[in-house]
Amino acid sequence: MPIDPALLAETDRLRAAPRPTLRAVSEGMEAHLYRPIPVLDHGFVRVVDYMGDDAAIVQAARVSYGAGTRTARDDAGLIRYLMRHWHSTPFEMCEIKLHVKLPVFVARQWIRHRTASVNEMSARYSILDREFYVPAPEHLAAQSAVNAQGRGAALAGDEAARVLDWLKADAARAFDHYEAMLATEGQQGLARELARTVLPMSTYTQWYWKTDLHNLFHFLRLRADAHAQYEIRVYAEAIAAVVADWVPAAWGAFRDYRLGGVSLSAQGVAVLKRRLAGEVVTQEESGMSKGEWREFCEVWG
Amino acid sequence: MPIDPALLAETDRLRAAPRPTLRAVSEGMEAHLYRPIPVLDHGFVRVVDYMGDDAAIVQAARVSYGAGTRTARDDAGLIRYLMRHWHSTPFEMCEIKLHVKLPVFVARQWIRHRTASVNEMSARYSILDREFYVPAPEHLAAQSAVNAQGRGAALAGDEAARVLDWLKADAARAFDHYEAMLATEGQQGLARELARTVLPMSTYTQWYWKTDLHNLFHFLRLRADAHAQYEIRVYAEAIAAVVADWVPAAWGAFRDYRLGGVSLSAQGVAVLKRRLAGEVVTQEESGMSKGEWREFCEVWG
Amino acid sequence: MPIDPALLAETDRLRAAPRPTLRAVSEGMEAHLYRPIPVLDHGFVRVVDYMGDDAAIVQAARVSYGAGTRTARDDAGLIRYLMRHWHSTPFEMCEIKLHVKLPVFVARQWIRHRTASVNEMSARYSILDREFYVPAPEHLAAQSAVNAQGRGAALAGDEAARVLDWLKADAARAFDHYEAMLATEGQQGLARELARTVLPMSTYTQWYWKTDLHNLFHFLRLRADAHAQYEIRVYAEAIAAVVADWVPAAWGAFRDYRLGGVSLSAQGVAVLKRRLAGEVVTQEESGMSKGEWREFCEVWG
Amino acid sequence: MPIDPALLAETDRLRAAPRPTLRAVSEGMEAHLYRPIPVLDHGFVRVVDYMGDDAAIVQAARVSYGAGTRTARDDAGLIRYLMRHWHSTPFEMCEIKLHVKLPVFVARQWIRHRTASVNEMSARYSILDREFYVPAPEHLAAQSAVNAQGRGAALAGDEAARVLDWLKADAARAFDHYEAMLATEGQQGLARELARTVLPMSTYTQWYWKTDLHNLFHFLRLRADAHAQYEIRVYAEAIAAVVADWVPAAWGAFRDYRLGGVSLSAQGVAVLKRRLAGEVVTQEESGMSKGEWREFCEVWG
Repeated sequence: MPIDPALLAETDRLRAAPRPTLRAVSEGMEAHLYRPIPVLDHGFVRVVDYMGDDAAIVQAARVSYGAGTRTARDDAGLIRYLMRHWHSTPFEMCEIKLHVKLPVFVARQWIRHRTASVNEMSARYSILDREFYVPAPEHLAAQSAVNAQGRGAALAGDEAARVLDWLKADAARAFDHYEAMLATEGQQGLARELARTVLPMSTYTQWYWKTDLHNLFHFLRLRADAHAQYEIRVYAEAIAAVVADWVPAAWGAFRDYRLGGVSLSAQGVAVLKRRLAGEVVTQEESGMSKGEWREFCEVWG
Repeated sequence: MPIDPALLAETDRLRAAPRPTLRAVSEGMEAHLYRPIPVLDHGFVRVVDYMGDDAAIVQAARVSYGAGTRTARDDAGLIRYLMRHWHSTPFEMCEIKLHVKLPVFVARQWIRHRTASVNEMSARYSILDREFYVPAPEHLAAQSAVNAQGRGAALAGDEAARVLDWLKADAARAFDHYEAMLATEGQQGLARELARTVLPMSTYTQWYWKTDLHNLFHFLRLRADAHAQYEIRVYAEAIAAVVADWVPAAWGAFRDYRLGGVSLSAQGVAVLKRRLAGEVVTQEESGMSKGEWREFCEVWG
Repeated sequence: MPIDPALLAETDRLRAAPRPTLRAVSEGMEAHLYRPIPVLDHGFVRVVDYMGDDAAIVQAARVSYGAGTRTARDDAGLIRYLMRHWHSTPFEMCEIKLHVKLPVFVARQWIRHRTASVNEMSARYSILDREFYVPAPEHLAAQSAVNAQGRGAALAGDEAARVLDWLKADAARAFDHYEAMLATEGQQGLARELARTVLPMSTYTQWYWKTDLHNLFHFLRLRADAHAQYEIRVYAEAIAAVVADWVPAAWGAFRDYRLGGVSLSAQGVAVLKRRLAGEVVTQEESGMSKGEWREFCEVWG
Repeated sequence: MPIDPALLAETDRLRAAPRPTLRAVSEGMEAHLYRPIPVLDHGFVRVVDYMGDDAAIVQAARVSYGAGTRTARDDAGLIRYLMRHWHSTPFEMCEIKLHVKLPVFVARQWIRHRTASVNEMSARYSILDREFYVPAPEHLAAQSAVNAQGRGAALAGDEAARVLDWLKADAARAFDHYEAMLATEGQQGLARELARTVLPMSTYTQWYWKTDLHNLFHFLRLRADAHAQYEIRVYAEAIAAVVADWVPAAWGAFRDYRLGGVSLSAQGVAVLKRRLAGEVVTQEESGMSKGEWREFCEVWG
């Protein structure tokens, strides 16, 4: 689905006029500013503002360590140290503001992350556009048989066709009725705040969402994860690619310590140490429950 | 709509077994514990836990004022002083936990209040009940002609009948398809996290919501207000009645200083002082915009 | 006390190299960037970064109101409307980061504002400079006779001399001992984290402090107020002057609605209405306590 | 140092009158209520209120998972699952309120944890008691030679005697002058808010501090850690012992997954897998910096 030409024109206009600033500038982020990154069938993410860069993290950390420390340890090394030891406040010194278009059911997961500022378009005040999410055929997944909140393979054949038809037809009908209820020709017209209740959760909404880098990392850790629902994960992945360009050192530390890292319980540490010493350890001897053992073996064999 | 008998039985069970505690106890709140208060056509609010009472507010404030102050000023007077001077932390010392059943579009307004803890039932994990909100005829309001996010009079006649029919029929059909898509007889069955996207915003959900008294007052101030949407206001009013029983002194101060109070701008103060001195002041002389003047005159004539 | 020449040189260096950006730029704020504003005898405030401007507030608010609203109401009018109606999230879209040098007893008041990011220099890690606050003679105030947490007139004569002498001599001696305990020549040297405990609350510390405009306004409302301790109020006033240059429309609304505004209780509204109708109302008839009445009369006579 | 007899009498009074409640009751916590636990030379921690228990965590999690899940998995198992997968909101459903007496330099570390409610006694309003922290001889530690923010062995001999003498004498003199400056006989008396600036960081203060279990765990993870300063760690350890009695299942999960657990980076996971496969890996081949490698080897040899 192409991005709205009016938004692209607005993007061009906003990108045409650089202005001088004395603030920290991230070249990687300047390249992204205002440009909508398409997500799902009608959605997008675009950066509308940012504050700080890798150096801002180091600067804040070094105040907290006082004078005389700007010696050996290079910036990336310090950033890795901060990430490793859960020193979160220096990462809060960077800020990002996004404009996001997303389905309501995705917005409902997203907003669970409370440490952020949000301004969402109001369906009490405005009339919503006729746009709703319909999964692409390859994402029309069956319920997972093993994971109550997971997906299996894509539906196929008649079942896929039937499901797609319902998803589209019900949403289209709801939008028809939404418009018909709002209309004021020959009738009063229902209040917007009530008419919207007929619309499906697949309806698109928009918001400005602003958060700091520490909280953004927390969001990405949970939502760029393989267990996150596909429809929010693609937003998280789009944002992650932007962050890698914005603060490359912080991103590298986050990738190595959080995304690619593993948390071990005391029992897990003990089992690994015994294995390293050549012992064979069974679940019964591990001190772990069956579920813990299964998750442990998924990583360590 | 009657409350689910299973919930009422659970309520009776939970209320049958008082236990001794050394903590502060609010008799007014004990009377409410676990009892569902019906709201809208299928919703409810019930208190599932609380912490503190009026005395806890005073106790916290007096620590912050140190020893030697427990003299003249009585507790209610101190609470009024705290409210008047925006001393918010003592009110944070009281906590409430609610179990709420509410339509999704109400939940989306409610969750904008970020300083709270929430656990919502997950439609990725569970299958939702066939329950959706349909306004009672007297609440099927027309769009306000003067306020973009307001309501006018109730719809009538054919228009009302048509709207009610659409609201009910579209939701019923969406639930039919939801169930048909989830079914696994003779087909794979769509993932729950996708099937739910067909459901309307009027669908009911449930959550546990916990916040402190300061943040609850902020919620009530905005949501028990005449400008709030009716469907969230009735929840706020139900909670307000509970709070009045829980912490009567704090409630009285909140009612007098926030709900019933008025904030004046510097210009508003100046105009009132001139009026008190017998002057007649026009909008042009007031330093207020037309909008500010109109709102000012709604209160002061 | 002159600002450290090294800091001034660093300021000049940072201000010498503007770079192009596509972000919103506030000319008023660019003029302040990095420049230390002297506060008290050794302290300062300097802006080290910012995000957003008046237009960013409007932009966020208009998303929340949807398309089609950028018509009549001008930006300043919309910002005043938002302030008047306690719509706080659009103001959260602007962010400021300050570098502050301040006495510890001021830092302890300041940090009570929790919705901010802070990196403070660590006296566990670093050795503190020999700098402590001593009030100027005109600020060496007596305890207020009427307000337990207020000040009276400045001390004079022998008493002033004696107090100044103690404040200086005790701090100087504590710093002497601090350095002597840390020294490692001919002895082990006490741990920094213990040695610092001998230093007085007047000792200066430094931090990076970052917050959004909504929370900054809350800070300014409480700390630029006449009831705030003088030593934190001067920091708040220095910041307020910066904010007026950064977001002039938002500042104007804040000044008119919060700093210069008045909150009336329900009883206060009722009394004013009766007075406007020509009635004379006594405290006994007002429904207010003596304290409420006194505060009411301070404003309204 | 014995606890103030007046506080013990107050504790007895508060513990003498159990009242019936319908709320969740934790027997383990009831045994602790109001009882001051001595910490350092003059400090204490006492629980003054709490909300919830292990079952409250499970209850909240099960709402978020919807109906039909209260089957096999027992409560402790579910709590371990939540902890393992960083599901933090159910732990927010439990709340604790503490009354703490602590030195100012400890309070300054403590308050960095922002997600809590605090009411501290005010030295603007009240006159502080003559109480300050002096380390016991075995805790009068030298500066660490290897860790800028760590401690070495205890000081000995003349150096220890000299340091103790300074710590005591300077604080005593500051308190003498504090009282002399406040005195109003024959002089005006300095404002309390200024007089306090002469007092050392070792001065004791008091506060009410309230937080939820999720945030308390975060506090304990950082402050009960071996790298935390001894003087705050003893408070964290006292609180940890209380939590173990309050919510034993949650405590067990926290102990196994956080306190006793280990976080591995992607590089650490790779090295361990190669070691488990029998390879010898050097720092150069590990992809880790020297610092990372040293920390890795401290755990894994």
